[in-house]
Amino acid sequence: MTAGHTTLRSWHEVPFTKVKITDAFWRPRLDILREVTLKSCLGKCEETGRISNFAKAGGLAEGTFEGIYFNDSDVYKVLEGVAYALMLERDAALEAEADRIIELIAAAQEQDGYLCTYFTLVAPERKWTDMEKHEMYNGGHLIEAAVAYYEATGKRRLLDVACRLADHYDRNFGPGKRHWVEGHEEIELALIKLYRTTGEARYWKLACWLLEERGHGHGVGEIWNKPEWGPAYCQDDVPVREIQEVTGHAVRAMYLYAAMADAVHVSGDPAYAAALHRVWSHTVERNMYVTGGIGPSHHNEGFTHDYDLPNETAYCETCAAIAMVFWNHRMNLLFGEGKFADVVEREMYNGALAGLSLSGDRFFYVNPLASQGDHHRVPWFDTSCCPTNLARFLPSIGQYAYARTEGGFAVNQYVQGEADLALENGTGVKLKQRTSYPWSGTVELEVSPETSGAFRIQLRVPEWCRGYRVQAGGEWLSGEDAPVERGYLSIERAWSAGDTILLELDMPVEIVRARQEVQANEGRIALQRGPVVYCIEQCDHAGLHYDEMTFSARERLLVEHRQDLLGGVTALRGKDGRGDPCRFVPYYAWDNREPGYMQVWIRECEDKPLYNY
Amino acid sequence: MTAGHTTLRSWHEVPFTKVKITDAFWRPRLDILREVTLKSCLGKCEETGRISNFAKAGGLAEGTFEGIYFNDSDVYKVLEGVAYALMLERDAALEAEADRIIELIAAAQEQDGYLCTYFTLVAPERKWTDMEKHEMYNGGHLIEAAVAYYEATGKRRLLDVACRLADHYDRNFGPGKRHWVEGHEEIELALIKLYRTTGEARYWKLACWLLEERGHGHGVGEIWNKPEWGPAYCQDDVPVREIQEVTGHAVRAMYLYAAMADAVHVSGDPAYAAALHRVWSHTVERNMYVTGGIGPSHHNEGFTHDYDLPNETAYCETCAAIAMVFWNHRMNLLFGEGKFADVVEREMYNGALAGLSLSGDRFFYVNPLASQGDHHRVPWFDTSCCPTNLARFLPSIGQYAYARTEGGFAVNQYVQGEADLALENGTGVKLKQRTSYPWSGTVELEVSPETSGAFRIQLRVPEWCRGYRVQAGGEWLSGEDAPVERGYLSIERAWSAGDTILLELDMPVEIVRARQEVQANEGRIALQRGPVVYCIEQCDHAGLHYDEMTFSARERLLVEHRQDLLGGVTALRGKDGRGDPCRFVPYYAWDNREPGYMQVWIRECEDKPLYNY
Repeated sequence: MTAGHTTLRSWHEVPFTKVKITDAFWRPRLDILREVTLKSCLGKCEETGRISNFAKAGGLAEGTFEGIYFNDSDVYKVLEGVAYALMLERDAALEAEADRIIELIAAAQEQDGYLCTYFTLVAPERKWTDMEKHEMYNGGHLIEAAVAYYEATGKRRLLDVACRLADHYDRNFGPGKRHWVEGHEEIELALIKLYRTTGEARYWKLACWLLEERGHGHGVGEIWNKPEWGPAYCQDDVPVREIQEVTGHAVRAMYLYAAMADAVHVSGDPAYAAALHRVWSHTVERNMYVTGGIGPSHHNEGFTHDYDLPNETAYCETCAAIAMVFWNHRMNLLFGEGKFADVVEREMYNGALAGLSLSGDRFFYVNPLASQGDHHRVPWFDTSCCPTNLARFLPSIGQYAYARTEGGFAVNQYVQGEADLALENGTGVKLKQRTSYPWSGTVELEVSPETSGAFRIQLRVPEWCRGYRVQAGGEWLSGEDAPVERGYLSIERAWSAGDTILLELDMPVEIVRARQEVQANEGRIALQRGPVVYCIEQCDHAGLHYDEMTFSARERLLVEHRQDLLGGVTALRGKDGRGDPCRFVPYYAWDNREPGYMQVWIRECEDKPLYNY
Repeated sequence: MTAGHTTLRSWHEVPFTKVKITDAFWRPRLDILREVTLKSCLGKCEETGRISNFAKAGGLAEGTFEGIYFNDSDVYKVLEGVAYALMLERDAALEAEADRIIELIAAAQEQDGYLCTYFTLVAPERKWTDMEKHEMYNGGHLIEAAVAYYEATGKRRLLDVACRLADHYDRNFGPGKRHWVEGHEEIELALIKLYRTTGEARYWKLACWLLEERGHGHGVGEIWNKPEWGPAYCQDDVPVREIQEVTGHAVRAMYLYAAMADAVHVSGDPAYAAALHRVWSHTVERNMYVTGGIGPSHHNEGFTHDYDLPNETAYCETCAAIAMVFWNHRMNLLFGEGKFADVVEREMYNGALAGLSLSGDRFFYVNPLASQGDHHRVPWFDTSCCPTNLARFLPSIGQYAYARTEGGFAVNQYVQGEADLALENGTGVKLKQRTSYPWSGTVELEVSPETSGAFRIQLRVPEWCRGYRVQAGGEWLSGEDAPVERGYLSIERAWSAGDTILLELDMPVEIVRARQEVQANEGRIALQRGPVVYCIEQCDHAGLHYDEMTFSARERLLVEHRQDLLGGVTALRGKDGRGDPCRFVPYYAWDNREPGYMQVWIRECEDKPLYNY
């Protein structure tokens, strides 16, 4: 079937539990995530009353609600991260702590299934009166955590809570029942997850109904009445199948599109597919930073007008970058097209990753592309969606690496490790990946099917890579042997245990220039090597003031891998426009040394090209 | 001392006799040169009466002068090539043939030393009446051949002829004697060569006087009176030290600048150095094609106005590309700056090399960057300067690889082989170079000084290379250990026999866009990988008409090395704007298969970049 211009492929995901990561880039981050980030987030949830809110709502503790009405979601998101961490590695103490919190959550659930500690404790009479008060948003994160924890441990306790909550929604909302336009999307994709885990069709139907509720004037709440925000803020301005352009709050929009992609996966609705393609182009081609950051404005934490991409004041919420991964991964599974995995990669190595300190316990909420030196990661926020999103994003990163396709499997992301894949016919395939990605473009694969047979292996040729070579079985392949379609090169042949593929992706330093429509970057260049976007930091440039550096696009750069720098990075060293030494470091790693200014887009030296081209 | 803005470095050349080439790119070309090209050129010189003109002038044969008045020079240039070939490999038959021709030349010399068979045979009364009749141009090539043959064989016969001719010039021209503005420069650099071989200072003084003669209204001859040509055609419009811009006939201009560079080497004159820098910028930055070709116009075989770089009608004489090598190599030795060696490289792999068929016996005089299919190499021309220039350029190509510097040596060009270098203090250094250049940017060097000691090795980081890494002794070097200055990275340390350097130059496929001033290339892109510029040929694109192809700068390209294609090339394969397979091949190798169209600059697909940059 076709949806708009693109054929639905419906690739199948390979869960991260089938993907063992052994590389020098992600492996240490996963360790830090488990040992530092999760514990730090749990501690902060405790410290700030987020956990005790459940105890209070459940009558297990005294006191009033602390914090903001969406704080329950942070606890759920950390639990989801804990579940993923447990899937990667058992940890009895961590599991016991999760079980303890789950009991408090269960206690906080009301008799009818309702669960939102703010309303239970503060304003039970105002339940379901303002659609922007995150009641279903909180619920969505509960459901995601419950599914994850069930899959990690087999324990149904939280899943049962989630089902009771979803049933509560289903009883009250839906065709012939009450209207509801959830002010912060999230519940939709959660309900589809719950459907996939439980097999209960009413959950995906409710999700689809919630999607269809938008854009018909059903929205009620403070935010809808504020002229400077209004329905577009939460994507309630047009029915979803009529969406033309990305609008409003960035995280909300991305969660909506992710759910729509899930809905296409379930329903195959071509109008949804067409809307997704439209809004993807509009988002990625006109409203995304080179880092993958989206949503330039602090005012609405979201979108403004096309090509409005200021650097210093960029909002670029960490959650929005992570949500871009959620959406684009789903798009890639749906349509089997490398451009979606390209965006996943851009976020993985830039926009999303920048949110976390190398130490694992400090976070950015806002990710500007330039700073005069006053922007630093902190351990926590009053609104702490970003730390808790990182807590669940990172441990599950392995899920983006592979997909099962119609005729074999696809390698979407290059990460060293081992994977247990399965073909459509059930044949298992062990895949070993050996690479120093993202610092090198050389990838060695060892393919070992249980039984020899013909199938197709697709390898993404990233958007940043212009030239590549590929070997199979030690022989260089021609264009006929390894055709590239939709961003993937395909090798279709009979494979036996131990067969090898060698992919060499040219990974030069690229000079990036903004489209002329992007006023902020006029006369500026940025550096990117492979998927990694670079920046300059003050501590490498003594005596040079903020925005004073100029740089020539023709400068030769030493590509210097330094294990002792920023946790092991490939830095770029050359000379600036004055002839002074300069150093570029990965954007994701900025603000991990002495505080100071940072810039991604550097003034280009007076343009004096050597040649007539 | 400083000359203008640039310090004179005065590097010393490493003659090609010290450089053994063993690679897969140049070695087969050198073999073909010796076995095919030289013999073919000698045969054509015989066949067309160029050699018998000498016999006739010397009274050893009957008959009238055949051909054009500058035809003597072709014989001299082939002899120069023969001499270089003999330096690389003894060949008794070839040497005997050269000796035979040299006797005819000697016979043709008049009693007073005059030698130019056209005037001797046709119009002795018109000697020295029209400065554009190539009398000294012919003489210059005689001198170059004589110096080469003397160095190759130790035989003085031709050198004595050359000295008598130079003495004849010196008796008749110079301060207080007759004025002379040679209409086609060449004699000046030849006289400086002769000075270097004989030690006779009067030769370089005469060369410098001849340079100074220009631009003072002394020019006499037909060409000076033609308004559409005039003195600028032969660079007689301004005194050489006042040159601002490149003008006139391209080969003439390049030979002049080469001689001026030689003069700076002898005299250190800062006004000359400044003029050379000015005219270099003007030539290279505004009047050179991406192939290194210069001189767009058929009318004057030379320059028109800045950025006038039409593709189909490009003249780009092969000799002009070779002359650019002569000039730029001298500039590099003088100023020790990589940008000059970059131009040498651009010509070596593109503009100059395109002049010769892979078979070695067919030649381009004119090198357009686009052809509708009617332009093909031929075995010979009435004016055959280009074949005979290739005959002397190719065997001496090893001379461009290295230079002795103040503190060690420089590697200017990456060519696999072995070299016998010497440091300033006389210590010999054996250098082994291992590389698949120009198809790969990886270069391994083994450095073996006779006695261990500290010196500096400089490696050119080519203009096309943005990122590089370098190891010495198995250790990756930092920016401090291997600083880059003036296009060269320097490694200064104690070296012992067998020490190694590994240089890795990123060699991606580059999308080249012309400056907007170049109207011919508006909306077009070209592909370059390393030093090699690519083109498309009709025989790879059945069904696609001339100039019909569009290509996206974002297309992924398979970098496919094919030993069975065009003598072994790395081709680039992808899809054109229609989605049809397309192939790019090195420009230098075009017109070696079925005849058809060719294009370097391809229409860029509708610009629809994926991202906002």
